[in-house]
Amino acid sequence: MCIDEKDKPIGIFDSGVGGLTVVREVMRNIPKERIVYFGDTARVPYGSKSKETILRYSRQIVRFLRSQDVKAIVIACNTASALALEELSREITIPIIGVVKPGAKVACATTKNNRVGVIGTKGTISSGLYTDFIRQINPHIHVVGKACPLFVPLVEENWLKDPVTVEVATRYLAELKEQNIDTLILGCTHYPLLRSTIGKIMGEQVTLVNPAYETACRLRELLHEEHLMNETSLEENKNPHRFYVSDAAESFRDFANSILPCEIEKAKKINIEDY
Amino acid sequence: MCIDEKDKPIGIFDSGVGGLTVVREVMRNIPKERIVYFGDTARVPYGSKSKETILRYSRQIVRFLRSQDVKAIVIACNTASALALEELSREITIPIIGVVKPGAKVACATTKNNRVGVIGTKGTISSGLYTDFIRQINPHIHVVGKACPLFVPLVEENWLKDPVTVEVATRYLAELKEQNIDTLILGCTHYPLLRSTIGKIMGEQVTLVNPAYETACRLRELLHEEHLMNETSLEENKNPHRFYVSDAAESFRDFANSILPCEIEKAKKINIEDY
Repeated sequence: MCIDEKDKPIGIFDSGVGGLTVVREVMRNIPKERIVYFGDTARVPYGSKSKETILRYSRQIVRFLRSQDVKAIVIACNTASALALEELSREITIPIIGVVKPGAKVACATTKNNRVGVIGTKGTISSGLYTDFIRQINPHIHVVGKACPLFVPLVEENWLKDPVTVEVATRYLAELKEQNIDTLILGCTHYPLLRSTIGKIMGEQVTLVNPAYETACRLRELLHEEHLMNETSLEENKNPHRFYVSDAAESFRDFANSILPCEIEKAKKINIEDY
Repeated sequence: MCIDEKDKPIGIFDSGVGGLTVVREVMRNIPKERIVYFGDTARVPYGSKSKETILRYSRQIVRFLRSQDVKAIVIACNTASALALEELSREITIPIIGVVKPGAKVACATTKNNRVGVIGTKGTISSGLYTDFIRQINPHIHVVGKACPLFVPLVEENWLKDPVTVEVATRYLAELKEQNIDTLILGCTHYPLLRSTIGKIMGEQVTLVNPAYETACRLRELLHEEHLMNETSLEENKNPHRFYVSDAAESFRDFANSILPCEIEKAKKINIEDY
């Protein structure tokens, strides 16, 4: 393995801004890595689209990220992780991981009473994608899913600890509290931003699993295994990370700057259908 | 004009379920007309997409509706009305109208102090599409826009008069109340379902303009002018209307049944990209 290979950036993509919670965890936990992010803001949301469409979109994005010479790819989108990871893994030679498996795995290792809750968008919950992964690992685990469609727009309004958000979350989570779960997966990339509100409502006896964090940990392991870990620190003033979107670059930048540990100057809009 | 022509249905389309408020107004105000509705639920939302994309999608939908032999078309989507109506009018021979112009026209005729408010999605407000139409009619009118991104998911949760919705609406509308407007356009097809909540907050001195209703009135006029009005009553037991979507047909049907004056049995999923 030559030095050059280690110096290459990590490619991370999502259907929109939500995947920035994965970027945040990678920045915090593997701070020497450079990131190239793509948010498919023109074609968001992915949750209601067919497998065929998600696969076509994901292939375009992977081609774009490879044109940026990335050394590994993270699918920071629940839908694309569930529907496209397997095919993409067979099609490319660099390592690629998604957010669903690491989240499901840690939930299985965490639960003591074999009762796991999953919250997510309507698309994620009705597709049962976390349920399927969890059952593959341990068929004895009972999985309770609950769609929380107002959480994404509440996060995008930045009303993270607002009384409105607390009231909405209290209603959504009431069902799950009755189900005696001891582990709850935050199954949508936006939800870690509501972690403190959700944690207070669910109480101390319920462990929250953040797939964004677990994915960053899995990525760190993988870079080790493949001898791809960058060993030189990033020079802070050099803006090592790059952000691309398919639409609405300015509102993307504003949202990114509200949640990332470093300031980003701009997100560049590209025509993803050209890839 | 032969009888057959008058018997044909009206085609109505939207990016998703919102356009059903236009369907509702057509059913109420022109009850003898049959409707063929298409909701592009797989590619919703349109607000963040480019003009080129909206035009391509709208052309596909118009081709589909024409395959259903409609006699006139209503674009029940704010974005597509603003971005595609002009081109489509030139391309087809049957009458076609949108929701933006009728709403803007009535707002201009209603305001006495020349101060009009518009609420809508982020896409509608930032594109200034109502502002442009109003200024074309009367350049002296001052238009104040306010995006209300939580309204659509609140309507889709069916929390129409819920305390959470009242609190959210009170915050969103506070800015508009300060601006001394006397007329407020409900510039998103979902918002008429929040009419009573919005009306209470804005107070009696502000007239709410519902583009869905104004569009149904404009359609009635147009059918008269073109001698296309159906003169025989619909037989209630015959399910005269037809509903098509590009995805998630079941949740569409549930939403439709919660707001329409008649029960619909099913919505049929079609592959719109084939048109």
